[in-house]
Amino acid sequence: MPRISEKSRNIPPSPIRKLSACADAAKARGIHVYHLNIGQPDLATPREALEAVRKTDLDILAYTHSAGIESYRRKLVRYYHEVGIDISPDELLVTVGGSEALFMAIMVCVNAGEEVLVPEPFYANYNSFAIEAGVNIKPIFSTIENDFALPPIEEFERHITPHTKAILICNPNNPTGYLYSDEELMRLRDIVLRHDLYLICDEVYREFCYDGHKHISVLNLAGAEEHAVMVDSMSKRYSMCGIRLGALVSRNREVIEAAMNMAQARLSPPLLAQIAAEAALDAPESYFKDAYEAYRERRDCLVNGLNGIPGVYCPMPKGAFYALARLPIDDCERFARWMLEEFSWKGATVMIAPATGFYASMSLGHDEARFAYVLNTDDLRAAVECLREALKCYPGTTLK
Amino acid sequence: MPRISEKSRNIPPSPIRKLSACADAAKARGIHVYHLNIGQPDLATPREALEAVRKTDLDILAYTHSAGIESYRRKLVRYYHEVGIDISPDELLVTVGGSEALFMAIMVCVNAGEEVLVPEPFYANYNSFAIEAGVNIKPIFSTIENDFALPPIEEFERHITPHTKAILICNPNNPTGYLYSDEELMRLRDIVLRHDLYLICDEVYREFCYDGHKHISVLNLAGAEEHAVMVDSMSKRYSMCGIRLGALVSRNREVIEAAMNMAQARLSPPLLAQIAAEAALDAPESYFKDAYEAYRERRDCLVNGLNGIPGVYCPMPKGAFYALARLPIDDCERFARWMLEEFSWKGATVMIAPATGFYASMSLGHDEARFAYVLNTDDLRAAVECLREALKCYPGTTLK
Repeated sequence: MPRISEKSRNIPPSPIRKLSACADAAKARGIHVYHLNIGQPDLATPREALEAVRKTDLDILAYTHSAGIESYRRKLVRYYHEVGIDISPDELLVTVGGSEALFMAIMVCVNAGEEVLVPEPFYANYNSFAIEAGVNIKPIFSTIENDFALPPIEEFERHITPHTKAILICNPNNPTGYLYSDEELMRLRDIVLRHDLYLICDEVYREFCYDGHKHISVLNLAGAEEHAVMVDSMSKRYSMCGIRLGALVSRNREVIEAAMNMAQARLSPPLLAQIAAEAALDAPESYFKDAYEAYRERRDCLVNGLNGIPGVYCPMPKGAFYALARLPIDDCERFARWMLEEFSWKGATVMIAPATGFYASMSLGHDEARFAYVLNTDDLRAAVECLREALKCYPGTTLK
Repeated sequence: MPRISEKSRNIPPSPIRKLSACADAAKARGIHVYHLNIGQPDLATPREALEAVRKTDLDILAYTHSAGIESYRRKLVRYYHEVGIDISPDELLVTVGGSEALFMAIMVCVNAGEEVLVPEPFYANYNSFAIEAGVNIKPIFSTIENDFALPPIEEFERHITPHTKAILICNPNNPTGYLYSDEELMRLRDIVLRHDLYLICDEVYREFCYDGHKHISVLNLAGAEEHAVMVDSMSKRYSMCGIRLGALVSRNREVIEAAMNMAQARLSPPLLAQIAAEAALDAPESYFKDAYEAYRERRDCLVNGLNGIPGVYCPMPKGAFYALARLPIDDCERFARWMLEEFSWKGATVMIAPATGFYASMSLGHDEARFAYVLNTDDLRAAVECLREALKCYPGTTLK
């Protein structure tokens, strides 16, 4: 029997889904599970998108242009203009989710065997896409004590070698909710210019920045036009994760042309998804306002609730809809499993994402977990209460 | 300015789309272009699929299971059972088109730096997926004189080295329309067993086998259960290329598990597509009968028409909806461009796919072209007449 490839053996199972079987078993026992483990919002998809799908009057569901339907791309360009990012339609490629845009960005920018620097903790799937591309991720440790701010520039420079080809960040950040400041982005710009690197930025949570903080796109860093590669997605902005539509955007024509050759090989992004997404761009301002308000309220509810539990520390996220908290536990994977298998409070339990899945360094994240605040505040309050009770009786507690 | 990766520079632009700008220019001059260059059928998508999309009553277009919606997977298993392939739902993974299934198959089965043997000419995008995976394709030449039959087993063995890890075939074949016989598949089975290789088979044209020939799935080769990996797609069977839905199927659990880890990294196949595809599986027998009859009639019309042109030779395809013909020309890329830029007959011209795009060997295919018989017979007859006239006055003719 032939052996599967080394690479594919290195691609880990999703840390978020690893516990799914335990959650299913808990549900089978009649226990309600609060899913704080995955960024699947409970907010409705814009009515405009759903109606466009229902009104589809095509006879043939045919291939679209490999870079996406032209009218959709033009409308995306208008959207970017409105959020202060000026690009032309040929600097944009419609992709199969942010996932494909990330894979293309890594594949195009970095040679197999070369390195990408990524502030740690980071979105677990970066790792899988890097492995597929044969690329090595070098994590740069950011600390919960410092609210996961960008590590000092010296830390980056200390890790740059002749094999370093890019820096990859997520802004606002999944899993930490951190939002990079103007000054931090300028520091990154200086590094990529000095060392001739690409700066790949995952900006899929752009719309979700709180407390008056403003999002700055990597595409607007003056002087770094040829270095900046932006990854986007419709999933979170319009609560339509299932359509699988994202975008790769860069002013570097060579990058877009190379990605276009990859796009042609896979023929076309999904047609029905593009119909939904093009219509979603017509959603009224009130749609975002409502979503924004909901997330802000949920964030406050969750994070204040978590910080009220003895031994828990959770920095207040400035963006996205995730919070990374330190818990008084021995091991987050063991704790997550225990909550699903052995614990319940008032007929319910909580599913969390163990933070170890977001760290490349084996020694980190064992007492941390990521919480997605994608449930309503009543559910979040009940989930926090559940967690508080769980921490009281978890055998692996580190509280005296 | 940083340089894009070596790999991405090696991924060629799509040979089929290279000429698109010329076709657009011809249309702008008022010339009708018969598109025989791409496998985009003009047949309607099943009514069942379109209605299911119109009836979508979801409020949130959420992620689905990474392996595909369970009810859809179960229905696919029933479909496979009906065509004589018995598998269980966990031997199947729903993918983003046949494209993703192909990429996953190559990625999982073959290490970077190792080799896949592929009978040549082959579907051009195999090359792009192999490059992305860092895998080398070793072409095994099949000849038009022999109607593109499987090259002798000795030819394969001559090319097998310690680096060979898989054989990849397309059956029925794109671009040649060749259908492998029972005996040929047995020979392939013997080779993969003897040399411990994977046998990856692209079977997306399964439904289109003519003249009483029967399709044999690679999954039904007794003794090769752990070696066989099947790639499938809904695109051609249901004329819904744009939904982007395929499948990876194998009885080798290790292969499916590794592919599942890749599937989890990209989160989910497109939801709306799965709704359409699940309903398409309810299309009545008459849908296939009509499609089948249409393609058979078109094949006869096109191939007999081509063989009636002086200097043209086109083997009669046994399956799929492509024909690869030898033309009396110096260079197929030059000819294809000339037809779009300098020729018209009764206000029309023909766009063909130069065969060079389907050969890895640089010296092959220069006097061949692929024709997709995806138009109605009136259009095909007009296209053949157009081609006949074009070959009379093409400056690079090789006819005396």
